[in-house]
Amino acid sequence: MLRIGVIGCGAMGRSHIDRITHKTRGAAVTAVSDVFEEGARKAAEIAGKGCKVYTNGKDLIADPDVDAVLIVSPGFAHKDDLIEAIKAGKRIFCEKPLCTTAEDCKTVMEAEAASGKHLIQLGFMRRYHKGYIQIKESIRTGEYGEPLIIHCTHRNPSVPESYITPMTVHDTAIHEIDLFHWMVNDDFDTVQVITPKQTSLIHDKCRDPHIMIMKTKTGVTVDLEVFVNCLFGYDINCEVVCEKGALTMGKPMAPVIKTAGIKSTPETMECYDLFKEAYDEEIQNWVDCAADGIIEGPNTWDGYLAAVTADALIKAQQTGEIVRVESVGKPDFYK
Amino acid sequence: MLRIGVIGCGAMGRSHIDRITHKTRGAAVTAVSDVFEEGARKAAEIAGKGCKVYTNGKDLIADPDVDAVLIVSPGFAHKDDLIEAIKAGKRIFCEKPLCTTAEDCKTVMEAEAASGKHLIQLGFMRRYHKGYIQIKESIRTGEYGEPLIIHCTHRNPSVPESYITPMTVHDTAIHEIDLFHWMVNDDFDTVQVITPKQTSLIHDKCRDPHIMIMKTKTGVTVDLEVFVNCLFGYDINCEVVCEKGALTMGKPMAPVIKTAGIKSTPETMECYDLFKEAYDEEIQNWVDCAADGIIEGPNTWDGYLAAVTADALIKAQQTGEIVRVESVGKPDFYK
Amino acid sequence: MLRIGVIGCGAMGRSHIDRITHKTRGAAVTAVSDVFEEGARKAAEIAGKGCKVYTNGKDLIADPDVDAVLIVSPGFAHKDDLIEAIKAGKRIFCEKPLCTTAEDCKTVMEAEAASGKHLIQLGFMRRYHKGYIQIKESIRTGEYGEPLIIHCTHRNPSVPESYITPMTVHDTAIHEIDLFHWMVNDDFDTVQVITPKQTSLIHDKCRDPHIMIMKTKTGVTVDLEVFVNCLFGYDINCEVVCEKGALTMGKPMAPVIKTAGIKSTPETMECYDLFKEAYDEEIQNWVDCAADGIIEGPNTWDGYLAAVTADALIKAQQTGEIVRVESVGKPDFYK
Amino acid sequence: MLRIGVIGCGAMGRSHIDRITHKTRGAAVTAVSDVFEEGARKAAEIAGKGCKVYTNGKDLIADPDVDAVLIVSPGFAHKDDLIEAIKAGKRIFCEKPLCTTAEDCKTVMEAEAASGKHLIQLGFMRRYHKGYIQIKESIRTGEYGEPLIIHCTHRNPSVPESYITPMTVHDTAIHEIDLFHWMVNDDFDTVQVITPKQTSLIHDKCRDPHIMIMKTKTGVTVDLEVFVNCLFGYDINCEVVCEKGALTMGKPMAPVIKTAGIKSTPETMECYDLFKEAYDEEIQNWVDCAADGIIEGPNTWDGYLAAVTADALIKAQQTGEIVRVESVGKPDFYK
Repeated sequence: MLRIGVIGCGAMGRSHIDRITHKTRGAAVTAVSDVFEEGARKAAEIAGKGCKVYTNGKDLIADPDVDAVLIVSPGFAHKDDLIEAIKAGKRIFCEKPLCTTAEDCKTVMEAEAASGKHLIQLGFMRRYHKGYIQIKESIRTGEYGEPLIIHCTHRNPSVPESYITPMTVHDTAIHEIDLFHWMVNDDFDTVQVITPKQTSLIHDKCRDPHIMIMKTKTGVTVDLEVFVNCLFGYDINCEVVCEKGALTMGKPMAPVIKTAGIKSTPETMECYDLFKEAYDEEIQNWVDCAADGIIEGPNTWDGYLAAVTADALIKAQQTGEIVRVESVGKPDFYK
Repeated sequence: MLRIGVIGCGAMGRSHIDRITHKTRGAAVTAVSDVFEEGARKAAEIAGKGCKVYTNGKDLIADPDVDAVLIVSPGFAHKDDLIEAIKAGKRIFCEKPLCTTAEDCKTVMEAEAASGKHLIQLGFMRRYHKGYIQIKESIRTGEYGEPLIIHCTHRNPSVPESYITPMTVHDTAIHEIDLFHWMVNDDFDTVQVITPKQTSLIHDKCRDPHIMIMKTKTGVTVDLEVFVNCLFGYDINCEVVCEKGALTMGKPMAPVIKTAGIKSTPETMECYDLFKEAYDEEIQNWVDCAADGIIEGPNTWDGYLAAVTADALIKAQQTGEIVRVESVGKPDFYK
Repeated sequence: MLRIGVIGCGAMGRSHIDRITHKTRGAAVTAVSDVFEEGARKAAEIAGKGCKVYTNGKDLIADPDVDAVLIVSPGFAHKDDLIEAIKAGKRIFCEKPLCTTAEDCKTVMEAEAASGKHLIQLGFMRRYHKGYIQIKESIRTGEYGEPLIIHCTHRNPSVPESYITPMTVHDTAIHEIDLFHWMVNDDFDTVQVITPKQTSLIHDKCRDPHIMIMKTKTGVTVDLEVFVNCLFGYDINCEVVCEKGALTMGKPMAPVIKTAGIKSTPETMECYDLFKEAYDEEIQNWVDCAADGIIEGPNTWDGYLAAVTADALIKAQQTGEIVRVESVGKPDFYK
Repeated sequence: MLRIGVIGCGAMGRSHIDRITHKTRGAAVTAVSDVFEEGARKAAEIAGKGCKVYTNGKDLIADPDVDAVLIVSPGFAHKDDLIEAIKAGKRIFCEKPLCTTAEDCKTVMEAEAASGKHLIQLGFMRRYHKGYIQIKESIRTGEYGEPLIIHCTHRNPSVPESYITPMTVHDTAIHEIDLFHWMVNDDFDTVQVITPKQTSLIHDKCRDPHIMIMKTKTGVTVDLEVFVNCLFGYDINCEVVCEKGALTMGKPMAPVIKTAGIKSTPETMECYDLFKEAYDEEIQNWVDCAADGIIEGPNTWDGYLAAVTADALIKAQQTGEIVRVESVGKPDFYK
């Protein structure tokens, strides 16, 4: 039984507590922390009696009844808890982003490498989505030749007033940044952001839509449409064009309904609906690998790479230019 | 140039006149007839100046400027004009039904055979529909083994008050009767009509829906849903189950639209929309074959077979029993 | 923690032991039994150390460390263990069939009713399949009117020599018998089996394919194609035709691949692949309801109904006639 | 009856002669010309007796039995015949390109404007394809808001050794250049060519694939994948992303076949198969408009615009830069 302490008791934190308590095998939430004690206390109730309540991550990490730490606090607060948990040698699951700057990501990465143990898994849950796994597996067979282009869309029905232009990278495209580097097993080299005609139906703090072009070192090119206020659905698509075949990701099971002169299928409207099994799987996999002390999911290096790629995309978005992704070489520890 | 006389100037007749005048190559409408002279006169205007107007079929058939006759009058009036045109040795296109009774169909068939010339094509336009042709061609390759079962639907959005129960056979299933006997090149031996739970949304003169089971001499079984007041679309489907493959008919080209939380495609609402190319093709083929004096489309024997199969279906509908299709043997003339 | 004893350690039994041990929350396998002791011993290893081994169900049922019993033995052996477990007041999950005769099913049903406790859940896992649940939910909204017809197929790639004609009912159609009675919340009244042209590609002990027609008391008509040697896939389809809409069950997520001149999707070839989540869900639901002492899944009455409907289908298959389903009235205990 | 002279008797020329002779209503081929007299003679046979044979366009144009000219000669030869036919006041259908340089296109455009008559239609047949027409019509309703992005692919199974890199623009993307400017009723302002990882399966004179980005004056952005040696099909796709809906072009009617463990649909392998109805329609429309002396299809201005846009794309392909499309203002004559 892996005893987990959860740092951060917002909506996402409570969702993870509920998951670990009711779905995950071999794990339990034994402690929670939040700077808002009342929130922490309510979250602890989800886990059931015996769950301890802290108001800072440091104390939670130090608790001997906590074997592993799940960090769901705001991004700016990640670094300190990560460093602390590494020092304590505790297994970590950290929601994205790893840290808010590439520099901090690098610091954490160096700390983990120095500890000599692979401790951190990042919350890029899409790698656990059945649809992407099927595509990656199809590529892996080699039957369709090398992948050359990936066309994809990341469409949201709508975003709140607080969602501003750079979040199209940090909150939205960040998933594709990690996902496709994993899909083709290659790192991004250059990025570009194209601004098409803009929708008139979004508030003026956010440009929308964008086409983001990301090219890997071997030239595989991701052609990503980010359209966060598309109104019609949470519409995630992916087509990988290979040398002798094109692979399109499947859609979740849904009824086809003929009525009133149309044949239709409901569109997913919530990210969570599409990826709920993936969230379950990522946490289960993290728990299952604890016994062997390994990380099979996205690791600290992936978190660092996502940060530097996002930095480049932001610059590309601001300048309209093709921007090189600047990163340190991959440390031996992550090879 | 095939000079055509059209008998019957209702909506369907005018549609054919328009087709021959504006779409068909190598043909022109040179005469029309209708018991309502005014209607005939208006119809003649579609064909343009020079088109003669008659008030009975006999005179039109006798006109030396008429090479071929297209009969679109009500079914009860077909027999006399068919016999007359056979006597005159004129090529005939006859809208379904051939005649309203099997006995009359037989009389016409015998007259044609006695004339020694293949003159009559029936208006079963579905044989010219691209979708059915693709399926028939796929069967013909032999790649999928023998056809065993045909699942199909004939759904109409709605029917008027004048549409009563037996019309589910005479006006609706009649198309499938001809079509699938042609598709598998076999004649029907027994039929059955199953009455499922009935829709509450149709007037009380018409039972709806039905499942009609028609089995050919070699056992190929057509499993046809007739649902004439389904409200949602003119929804024609066909799946042929073979020994090692199942073939589903394609759908017409239509956009896929994502909007307001659904992904949808418009359903065809009118029979004519689905089959307009088929109507064009059947007339063109009938015209093109005139030079060689042959009939490639559904012929008099097919018209007779449809009549006796429909009679059996009506009896099956009334009794709930499995009814044998009673027909004369296929005359050598049609082999 | 529900402590489960598993009776029957064949492939299906071992699969359930593995599921409960590695996927189900709140349960563990504490005992197994099989007449072949060696088989039982190997199965016990899946559950891990501490799992007891018995060579008969009676002893296992009597074990005070067994709270609940999962019966996966051959059908003929179910009755005695069911009666024994009812006497012991232990919760039961019983793989289909409940018993091999309607009479035995009735005896078990009476025993359970006499015990005053709802103890038995039947292994009709399809009720837990997401696709069917989506359709049932769509019907329930009332938006499409009453369901009238259900078109469905149960196609298997192939069957072994040991699979003979009556198994098309007992092993194959049995799933649809339970499923659609649940889907429309109505019992079957009459059944008929239509024998289309037969495939030449199956051994001579099994007729194939069949069309099975099952009509409920209110007339809802199931039009089921059973084709057990179709070669092309494990192809399960379902379309529910309602008064103003037709609902087609979705397909599992699968990539769409364009290569070598075709666009294709892999067909499921194994029943287990299609329903593995449903198996997980049915066991989890059975475990979760233990605390409240209720059965949410298919119960003893459903098992009895399936038996009498299957008997009628067998008779219909042998005679070609429409056969009435003879059943006792629904006991108050199951209302 | 429009009497047409065809200049150029290669494969495409003969195809048009066959079409006009056997499919088009209201037209006939009365003369043909080709520098290879033998080829011209053979082509004339398709049109039937009475069809005159010339060895240069000038004589054909001068023939008083020629009302209209169809130019299917190689692109470099277009200019002189266009000028000649304009002088003769004869109606012209010219296969793409209008001329091989923007300068020549401009000269022709000025000559036509000077003549005061709209004489020339360009052979951009895709505007007559049902799928694109459906999408344009859906946009026109305004129901989905303004179009913002167009994702599209132009994939060919393979190209011969003679097909070299610039032909990806001149022969392939040229269709999309005209099509999407028409679809959204706006002219292209800037273009860019992105070179993804290249297929290893094409000869070394042709780079492949490319992503071509074309932005209109109002910002509508075409995101076009050109992949001329994709091996799997002639795969033309188009999705128009609007402010509140996404419109995907339909596919031609084709059977869905389940066999041997997959469900598949044949991919079109030939451009001609996909667009044959569009070729018929463009010629018919050109013929039908002759009586009114108007051009409804793509005109000389469209041909000029395609030329300058293609020039920009070639430059973008060579430099990797974003290139501005340089054009003269639209002459009043074409407004």
